Amino acid sequence: MTSTDKAYAVIMAGGSGTRFWPLSRSTRPKQFLALGPDDRSLLRATAERVWDVLPAERTFVVTSEQLRAQVEQELPELQPSQILAEPVGRNTAPCIGWAATHVKRLDEDAIMAVLPADHYIRETEAYADTLRRGLEAATHGDYVTIGIRPTRAETGYGYIEVGSELDPGVFGARRFVEKPNRRRAEQFVSSGRFLWNSGMFFFRASRILEAIDQHLPGLGKELQRYDEAARAGNEAAVVQETYGELPAVSIDHGIMEKVSAVSVVPGSFEWSDLGSWTSAWELAPQDDHTNVLPEGGIAVDATGNYVQVPEGKLIALVGVDDLVVVDAGDALLVVPRDRAQDVREVVEALRERGDTRR
Amino acid sequence: MTSTDKAYAVIMAGGSGTRFWPLSRSTRPKQFLALGPDDRSLLRATAERVWDVLPAERTFVVTSEQLRAQVEQELPELQPSQILAEPVGRNTAPCIGWAATHVKRLDEDAIMAVLPADHYIRETEAYADTLRRGLEAATHGDYVTIGIRPTRAETGYGYIEVGSELDPGVFGARRFVEKPNRRRAEQFVSSGRFLWNSGMFFFRASRILEAIDQHLPGLGKELQRYDEAARAGNEAAVVQETYGELPAVSIDHGIMEKVSAVSVVPGSFEWSDLGSWTSAWELAPQDDHTNVLPEGGIAVDATGNYVQVPEGKLIALVGVDDLVVVDAGDALLVVPRDRAQDVREVVEALRERGDTRR
Repeated sequence: MTSTDKAYAVIMAGGSGTRFWPLSRSTRPKQFLALGPDDRSLLRATAERVWDVLPAERTFVVTSEQLRAQVEQELPELQPSQILAEPVGRNTAPCIGWAATHVKRLDEDAIMAVLPADHYIRETEAYADTLRRGLEAATHGDYVTIGIRPTRAETGYGYIEVGSELDPGVFGARRFVEKPNRRRAEQFVSSGRFLWNSGMFFFRASRILEAIDQHLPGLGKELQRYDEAARAGNEAAVVQETYGELPAVSIDHGIMEKVSAVSVVPGSFEWSDLGSWTSAWELAPQDDHTNVLPEGGIAVDATGNYVQVPEGKLIALVGVDDLVVVDAGDALLVVPRDRAQDVREVVEALRERGDTRR
Repeated sequence: MTSTDKAYAVIMAGGSGTRFWPLSRSTRPKQFLALGPDDRSLLRATAERVWDVLPAERTFVVTSEQLRAQVEQELPELQPSQILAEPVGRNTAPCIGWAATHVKRLDEDAIMAVLPADHYIRETEAYADTLRRGLEAATHGDYVTIGIRPTRAETGYGYIEVGSELDPGVFGARRFVEKPNRRRAEQFVSSGRFLWNSGMFFFRASRILEAIDQHLPGLGKELQRYDEAARAGNEAAVVQETYGELPAVSIDHGIMEKVSAVSVVPGSFEWSDLGSWTSAWELAPQDDHTNVLPEGGIAVDATGNYVQVPEGKLIALVGVDDLVVVDAGDALLVVPRDRAQDVREVVEALRERGDTRR
């Protein structure tokens, strides 16, 4: 069990999407919502899944300053030093690099599991197995990612082409492909050689910092300054001053697509990045008419609808199909399921008129 | 002005429909809702329109026992004796007959205007003119009804065939036709000889009681008992005991279709019996995309929708057309406009499971 003894988790919880409006707001993004099958927030569920494998003391959460208090509330197990609050979001490479400096100071040989806070995963035991396998693979010095077996020709995800098996359940990653078009996505799925890129990574903290030094030297230099400042006891001031100037690069583009020795662990659990209300409908338990309704909801000649209302509220659908109806108390959204992503236009309209309900 | 000096209004406010669920409830039916362009209830608006023509002291409201308190609250101008509470609803003939006994005891020569409490009328001055004309016509001894010029081949209304002009603006009524089929309705409208039956009547109280004695003798006999009991000071007990046994007959079927000397005053005001949420959509001010939205509502690629939400609540519609969305706080309805009448199936489902939100 050397692998998990050295293991640290870095949960990325700084996102601020609009796709789950009106339940999500700029001040309460998706990771704080209970979009899964139970009433835990996605962040809480992520942390509890991780803590099946490694202790809470070895968990970091990177978030934004404005979300810090909500993270503390959701995860009271964490010490203040385990929450890293970015002054501004600069995509994943700076976020992961910064966390890596913290992890490496605690243990030069530490392995990091980098995990988004806002994904949905159903089978926690299969997930824990995959997590252990990923951590183990990373001890050999590789950059490791979790790939999900595609269940459809999704054009909204990145794909990883899988090479030969290196160790049991660990494969070489031949290449990363960003969101493909429909035709390519279909080819990928039918080939059987491609997995969805889950955005979950494992590597030695020292190794990712070396890779940053090599491929994003500007960021690497700044992270060294952060590390020195931290050792001198004034990291916060330095981060506050310069974080906004870090390059806003994703870890996929900036590092993973450039390094060799990337391996992939296929995940055999149901997974979704919860891209829109449509995903919530796909994942939730549906009735005989493929409706997702709160308890006591009434549907007459209505199929394929997804409804969220405040607890105890009665919903009645008559003669409507494939709608998303979300009542957040102070705001109510009605949109066809296949246009769920257009909710961003509503958020944009609210922003333009200075309405705080966004 | 003899006509209005002798005039009494009888407002029928005992209805308990389900068609405006979830805003209307069995304990708060349509007449107590503000479905018109202002925030007055339909009952309040009806009373205020009447009081442009005759004083509040000469107004009776017939309602049910369970709605009595709400009528008192809406119309504090009325004395308790002006509110007649039926132990059970028995359609309009018993209701109007009972009110006629009250009116006649106050004035043997009184003219009654019988007016539903749950209709929508926009032009109050034109309405007042029509009311005065109807009352005047009734002083000649006729049974008078208000007919509305049809604006479409509506199959949900009754029609009146209009005969020759008897007095300026007063015509003989040749016959009443119940809800016709589409083809007949189209013929009626194109003929120019038919008006919608508004359900508003005028007659001398003594005259309608005579007609009841003749055409509904069982009811007539019971009404005489009520009158005697009232004079003896114990009407309430007698009504309580026997009202449920009165024949449940409408004034149209039971009397108006049987008597001669029925005349009709064409009403030249916009009118609706507000049969469903669709009517509410038709009557409310619509935006450029024929949506009826509360202030601040957002519609993206959405047309022809009708929305009611609690005050201050934000509604956002994206990519949906011709829907009715009504949020009553504890219950939310979504139904296509052309299926709005099917809301009764929801109310039926609630009744079956004993849910009080009906």
